[in-house]
Amino acid sequence: MSFRTTTCGALRAADAGKTVTLAGWVDTVRDHGGLIFIDLRDRYGLTQCVFDPEDSREAWDAAQSCRGEYVVQVTGRVEERSAETKNPKMATGDIEVRASSVAILNRAAPPPFPLDDREAAAVSEDLRLEHRYLDLRRRGMIDALTLRHALLHTAREYLDGNGFLEIETPILTKSTPEGARDYLVPSRVVPGAFFALPQAPQQYKQLLMVAGVDRYMQIARCFRDEDLRADRQPEFTQIDLEMSFIDEEDILSLTDGLIAKLMETAGLPVPELPLPRMTWREAQERFGSDKPDLRFGMEITDLGDVFAATQFKVFRRALDAGGVLKAINVKGGSPKCSIKLVEEDWTGEAKAAGLGGLAYIRVQEDGTWKSPIVKFFTDGERAGLQAKLDMAPGDLVLFGADQKEKVLPFLGRIRLAAAELTGAIDRNLFRFTWITEFPLFERNDEGRLASVHHPFTAPMAEDVSKLDTALEEVRARAYDIVLNGTELGGGSIRIHDPALQEKMFQVLGLPEEEIADRFGHLLKAFRYGAPPHGGLALGADRLVMLLAGKSSIRDVIAFPKTQKAMDLMMKAPAKVDAKQLRDIHIRTVVPE
Amino acid sequence: MSFRTTTCGALRAADAGKTVTLAGWVDTVRDHGGLIFIDLRDRYGLTQCVFDPEDSREAWDAAQSCRGEYVVQVTGRVEERSAETKNPKMATGDIEVRASSVAILNRAAPPPFPLDDREAAAVSEDLRLEHRYLDLRRRGMIDALTLRHALLHTAREYLDGNGFLEIETPILTKSTPEGARDYLVPSRVVPGAFFALPQAPQQYKQLLMVAGVDRYMQIARCFRDEDLRADRQPEFTQIDLEMSFIDEEDILSLTDGLIAKLMETAGLPVPELPLPRMTWREAQERFGSDKPDLRFGMEITDLGDVFAATQFKVFRRALDAGGVLKAINVKGGSPKCSIKLVEEDWTGEAKAAGLGGLAYIRVQEDGTWKSPIVKFFTDGERAGLQAKLDMAPGDLVLFGADQKEKVLPFLGRIRLAAAELTGAIDRNLFRFTWITEFPLFERNDEGRLASVHHPFTAPMAEDVSKLDTALEEVRARAYDIVLNGTELGGGSIRIHDPALQEKMFQVLGLPEEEIADRFGHLLKAFRYGAPPHGGLALGADRLVMLLAGKSSIRDVIAFPKTQKAMDLMMKAPAKVDAKQLRDIHIRTVVPE
Repeated sequence: MSFRTTTCGALRAADAGKTVTLAGWVDTVRDHGGLIFIDLRDRYGLTQCVFDPEDSREAWDAAQSCRGEYVVQVTGRVEERSAETKNPKMATGDIEVRASSVAILNRAAPPPFPLDDREAAAVSEDLRLEHRYLDLRRRGMIDALTLRHALLHTAREYLDGNGFLEIETPILTKSTPEGARDYLVPSRVVPGAFFALPQAPQQYKQLLMVAGVDRYMQIARCFRDEDLRADRQPEFTQIDLEMSFIDEEDILSLTDGLIAKLMETAGLPVPELPLPRMTWREAQERFGSDKPDLRFGMEITDLGDVFAATQFKVFRRALDAGGVLKAINVKGGSPKCSIKLVEEDWTGEAKAAGLGGLAYIRVQEDGTWKSPIVKFFTDGERAGLQAKLDMAPGDLVLFGADQKEKVLPFLGRIRLAAAELTGAIDRNLFRFTWITEFPLFERNDEGRLASVHHPFTAPMAEDVSKLDTALEEVRARAYDIVLNGTELGGGSIRIHDPALQEKMFQVLGLPEEEIADRFGHLLKAFRYGAPPHGGLALGADRLVMLLAGKSSIRDVIAFPKTQKAMDLMMKAPAKVDAKQLRDIHIRTVVPE
Repeated sequence: MSFRTTTCGALRAADAGKTVTLAGWVDTVRDHGGLIFIDLRDRYGLTQCVFDPEDSREAWDAAQSCRGEYVVQVTGRVEERSAETKNPKMATGDIEVRASSVAILNRAAPPPFPLDDREAAAVSEDLRLEHRYLDLRRRGMIDALTLRHALLHTAREYLDGNGFLEIETPILTKSTPEGARDYLVPSRVVPGAFFALPQAPQQYKQLLMVAGVDRYMQIARCFRDEDLRADRQPEFTQIDLEMSFIDEEDILSLTDGLIAKLMETAGLPVPELPLPRMTWREAQERFGSDKPDLRFGMEITDLGDVFAATQFKVFRRALDAGGVLKAINVKGGSPKCSIKLVEEDWTGEAKAAGLGGLAYIRVQEDGTWKSPIVKFFTDGERAGLQAKLDMAPGDLVLFGADQKEKVLPFLGRIRLAAAELTGAIDRNLFRFTWITEFPLFERNDEGRLASVHHPFTAPMAEDVSKLDTALEEVRARAYDIVLNGTELGGGSIRIHDPALQEKMFQVLGLPEEEIADRFGHLLKAFRYGAPPHGGLALGADRLVMLLAGKSSIRDVIAFPKTQKAMDLMMKAPAKVDAKQLRDIHIRTVVPE
């Protein structure tokens, strides 16, 4: 290393006596009665350098002219600090470098915001993104990028060790509009035609299975031109894989092993394997969600049996209409959830979700129940309720009585909100679960039948016969992996039987022409001998975010875009030359 | 593994007696007097399966219905073959599987071309690309993809081991038109504005150095909308890296180590390190090229001293005009290079290159020289020539007499053509060399001064003063790595001093506005403390191609585009819905 003999994170007491050269950025300069202290910073750490005019007047003079973020090179002798001046918070805190010379390699203008993790939180994110090259100098950011590197490296290692080939699939591909909007790229060679950036390498990876690649993986860049939510980016990264001659068990256990390796790499507790598995139905019943947060209990409890004979009108009406009666017990929630919250906010949400209202019971300190509805309960119902919900002083019980499809998601949402409010979530926990046996179909907003995942997802063998009789009961050979209430990814076993695939398109009511246009190449390929296969994709950004303990994926992406899909540093998107547009045979149509 | 207990490449004599289940594609079916032999194929190899109606009539029947490329699952007992039926060409040739059952997992239409490496060469490439999922079933293709995976995995391992962080830079970025055309992506959110796909992550990686990342690497996808030559693709892959606080030596020796690891991974002879280095000037003088093929000699020899006093008009004129007299000796070239080739084709090329003609000497079997020009040579000149060029019977000496800038590249091209013709190139050799000290500037077609690399390339320290006096003599701190006459990649030490950068723009005559537009964000970043830094990019596709012994990069890319930038399998680019265009505020302008 030409400019340094070691880095700013490396020196320890054992190095005392060595002459070293360091290079990096001036983190701080302090003048202590004639001695100048510079904390020199690089990616690897901080080292305190001391300038004494009696050691070298020239170095001391130069040090005095140093300002924050100057790039400097310091040569000096490593000295162990006296016991009382050691800094146990710094990895290099046992030593300092007594400088004999310093070279200013580059000066620096004062940064427009402090490069300090604690202070950065108060800085406008736009300002930070505009100067991302400075924002990334913060310890927290470089640590996040380092963890990202380590996690993706681990994923590659693990999959390589399991016989996967990493294969790069095209970025310039074909638009197959479904779900999200495609980013389009006008062709210069074929006027009026467009490439699209891939939303996922889904079709390519299935084609690779037809090609006999057997085990494919890719850390793949994907693109979606959507209005962004907090945890979305127009381009994002997926750990993508596909395998042949396998079933669900192979993919789930392979992924379990990957998760364990990733947790180990992140220095987090390695979960016991196999990771828990839960059917979609069970997740709905217990947590009102297909991505349950298992860091806390507060599960949804069915009270249908307790109140089977209830005369309380609201419950009676729901049960008689084929609905359900469910409740959650917010442990210790009564003092933390105000009357306004329960009777206005959450009741409003209940109504917005199509429920009649939100019945509740507050268990008071003396154990008595405060509630507008308990007077309608029989003693047996009270006892049953108490037994089922394990009610204790301070608890808040919330009821949902209506059609199951309305009650479960509503109570699922309230469960999460109540857990946040009552501090029921232990932030140090990492609770993974698989969700399996998803429904194969759903009705979209216009009531049209659509695939929950995509039309290549295989139905469960025992449900195939229902394709003619009870479509909504058909379960998919699909699985999601969930961490702490966030979907990390998912996948499915694909249909490899052409007749079943045909049937699926027919059931979905897709016109021949649309099938040919969207899936023609894949269906054609399937005619030449497709193996049984399936796969999985994990959202790399979200995974890294959760394992890094960050709350935004922008904190684990080197150069993210804003929620308006802008790159504030590069100032993209931007206008281009008229000639560039002529070359690609387009004209802009800008609204007045 | 649910569908198999082992793969088609795994079984050996030691496995005899085991009951196994295999799954794969029917490579061949042969009926040998009642016994049916199926070679079952997967990514890992081929296994011969034998069906005997006496073992299982049912399996035999099913086997009989199998056709090429059917996907089948075979269960049976591994048996060692008799000595005379062993097949030493197959890894599994010592055994066969005596099938007790077979399940047809999928039928297959007959492939439109033979899936055989030898026969594939005769198949139209377009047909193969249209059915790429079949083309990839060929042994040669899956081997190439496997090698690609292994090489890129090795590169990551090596760079990770050297402290590099892999950091993903954006694909949706800003158009900075220079050199090649950008692919553009219309923005939906900002009407009339465009993203561009990156031609390289050049600016991002320099920004990462400003950010203090210290060592960055990425296996990066890059894009160029150019009319394609045989070895270009609209999207291609680069092994990209950048380092801080280093000089040329650090990057060259790091890369040397990488090359050694890559050669080892490819099972090729590991070159002695350090790899040879040669200045650009030396490469021009000796090989007439900045990417010399060192697998053979036939170097360009200067004859200026031998002919200093020549009276031969053509030589005299050239030397008097400040030109040079150079020659190559095509060893054994006389019988292989016809009169027509030398006097018509190559002489024509010489004239096209601006030379007066192409003088030559053929050394005949008896050692006498046959040449229209030797009669003008003195005895001393003859002796000098003989000594310098080591002329032997069968040799062909070719002369170039003119300005050096014309003579050297011409003789360099003829040297390559002659080496091909005379079989002077040993295809088993891998000869790497660094080319250093490139010129910093060149004149473009319009005579305007331009950077050979890019305007951030640092000049050599000893040449900085020439920025005011002799621009064309200024050498760059740039380096290319060359393998067997092909440029694998290159890089440079960058300018980190703002004053020098300013000077560079001034010298290049770039208008303020253009500088701000193209490089504004980088220059702004440099104001906040840029470290000394430099980097390198290696063309991954070309590297894999050469190490795989392929002659086209399309053979080492899973889903390449044609030379017209089309994806024949996906049928991209393609028309899109009018609504999609409205959403992104553009209209197509298709020529009549």
